[in-house]
Amino acid sequence: MSDLPNRVRIAEEGPREGFQIATTPIPTADKIALIDALSRTGVSRLQVASFVSPKRVPGWADADAVVAGFTPRPGVIYHALWFNPQGLQRALAFKDRLSIHGSITVAASEAFSLKNLRRDRAGQIAAMRENIAEHQAAGVPVTRASVQAVFGCNFQGDVTPAQAIAAVSDVMALAAETGCVIERISLADSMGWANPGQIERVVGEVRSRWPGQAISLHLHDTRGLGIANAYAGLRMGVAEFDAAVGGTGGCPFAGHPGAPGNIATEELVLLCEEMGISTGIDIDALIAAGHLAETILGRGLPSALLRGGSLNAFRAKARAA
Amino acid sequence: MSDLPNRVRIAEEGPREGFQIATTPIPTADKIALIDALSRTGVSRLQVASFVSPKRVPGWADADAVVAGFTPRPGVIYHALWFNPQGLQRALAFKDRLSIHGSITVAASEAFSLKNLRRDRAGQIAAMRENIAEHQAAGVPVTRASVQAVFGCNFQGDVTPAQAIAAVSDVMALAAETGCVIERISLADSMGWANPGQIERVVGEVRSRWPGQAISLHLHDTRGLGIANAYAGLRMGVAEFDAAVGGTGGCPFAGHPGAPGNIATEELVLLCEEMGISTGIDIDALIAAGHLAETILGRGLPSALLRGGSLNAFRAKARAA
Repeated sequence: MSDLPNRVRIAEEGPREGFQIATTPIPTADKIALIDALSRTGVSRLQVASFVSPKRVPGWADADAVVAGFTPRPGVIYHALWFNPQGLQRALAFKDRLSIHGSITVAASEAFSLKNLRRDRAGQIAAMRENIAEHQAAGVPVTRASVQAVFGCNFQGDVTPAQAIAAVSDVMALAAETGCVIERISLADSMGWANPGQIERVVGEVRSRWPGQAISLHLHDTRGLGIANAYAGLRMGVAEFDAAVGGTGGCPFAGHPGAPGNIATEELVLLCEEMGISTGIDIDALIAAGHLAETILGRGLPSALLRGGSLNAFRAKARAA
Repeated sequence: MSDLPNRVRIAEEGPREGFQIATTPIPTADKIALIDALSRTGVSRLQVASFVSPKRVPGWADADAVVAGFTPRPGVIYHALWFNPQGLQRALAFKDRLSIHGSITVAASEAFSLKNLRRDRAGQIAAMRENIAEHQAAGVPVTRASVQAVFGCNFQGDVTPAQAIAAVSDVMALAAETGCVIERISLADSMGWANPGQIERVVGEVRSRWPGQAISLHLHDTRGLGIANAYAGLRMGVAEFDAAVGGTGGCPFAGHPGAPGNIATEELVLLCEEMGISTGIDIDALIAAGHLAETILGRGLPSALLRGGSLNAFRAKARAA
């Protein structure tokens, strides 16, 4: 019936996503404290900073200090983001602390490409060709095929499965042309348009076109369907997800202020662990990190589980009664 | 692969659930305004009041005035709740405005039965036997088999599928003994313990034991898995759900203040309609009713969709661009 994995790997994006959209500056020490708290929860991958222009994303002006400051924990893979050669050079200064891999990123929606990547789809592919060459010149492998706005777009409206597959094909063709070995295809529901039926259709098509290729889902909970979409992904055998503690984040260019961002890591962990799928994550430590993120950001985060509390605590209380 | 229905019926419980847990008194006129707004969204069933002791639930001291005051809309079935003969008599005074049917209610968890129903499971069955006789004496059909805490319990901990099925069996045996014709079996995740795998297992078992019997799911989003659980129910052919606009509500005796209550009706409608399952509900009218509920209650409700906004609006904007 379904193809649930035994084990899921979750890439925690809370620090990068959450601090990016903060409206008031977050002290560097607080960012580091959250990263270190998250690294102790058992997450295997942790996205810690964005090496972007401070003019475009002022919240990440201190990316270098944050990356220099966290305490590396054995077994945890630390990542960062960058979008141009300057960003790559900043990241390379920390190659002893960061796992440095490039991504080929395109959008399935022409309108979102223009808004978020500031080039049309054809222009973005040309830019990515240059970008790959820069990475290869620096000895940095490009291993991730990343497609944004796969399931719908606030600016274009619906994105058809055919458009989604065309965008994945573009990235994979570019990877083949440039000799990149792609380790995972990341499909992003950047603006929270996906429904579970669509996840099954698109993931199924990607699996049959690129058999054996690992797929990662990057889901947003903008309209409340995020965890249902993750469940649909699990049923289709997806074993890698991005998520953000507390459900923080959300694309600053997507046009719905106040809406939840990424799916909440702790809700994804609950979904998996309650169905017997191992994540390697201590959910209570993760909930504590979520409360820390709320303290640092000075506001409640959208995660329901941060309010409802872990089942472990209730199970322990029931056993003791 | 799955057994998705073509059409889903949603019983809107927002007014009853939401006003029950309000901490400050809500004016009767506001309650009526929300009921009338909801009746214009296309919902087919609407639970409008609780005829309970004003001492136990002060928020429903004005139940009679609310029921007397709404504007009945053709095609909408209006319901109320009651728990004793006094409540039934109060409801019967409005039999021209309300659809009056009784429920047989038990809990799958002994500990929750004691906390919420204030009797152990055996005591509750005995009390229900009396309750059915009272309904039958008043000429009121008892048509709903309702099981609480089916998927887990904050006080007992886990509830096994065997315990869930035993509780359904108890209710169905009592119905057979007393000559009640059960129209639907309602399975409630009263405290938000369910996961999608468990929904599939328990609903599957109920379907195979009582074939042809309609099943309704009453889901809470306490820990963020509510909509994923609804999706699992849809896959198992469930075509009736309770939900509450904005995700208001939640059991006042369940022990997690601040957590989301019922699944948000508008998120359930989005889930269904985006997958081609008809609900008959105008989602934008429902979102507007959710914002009205927020105004009346004086606080933001947990629904993500109230923040993220309908896809219809974005689709219309994209078409116009």
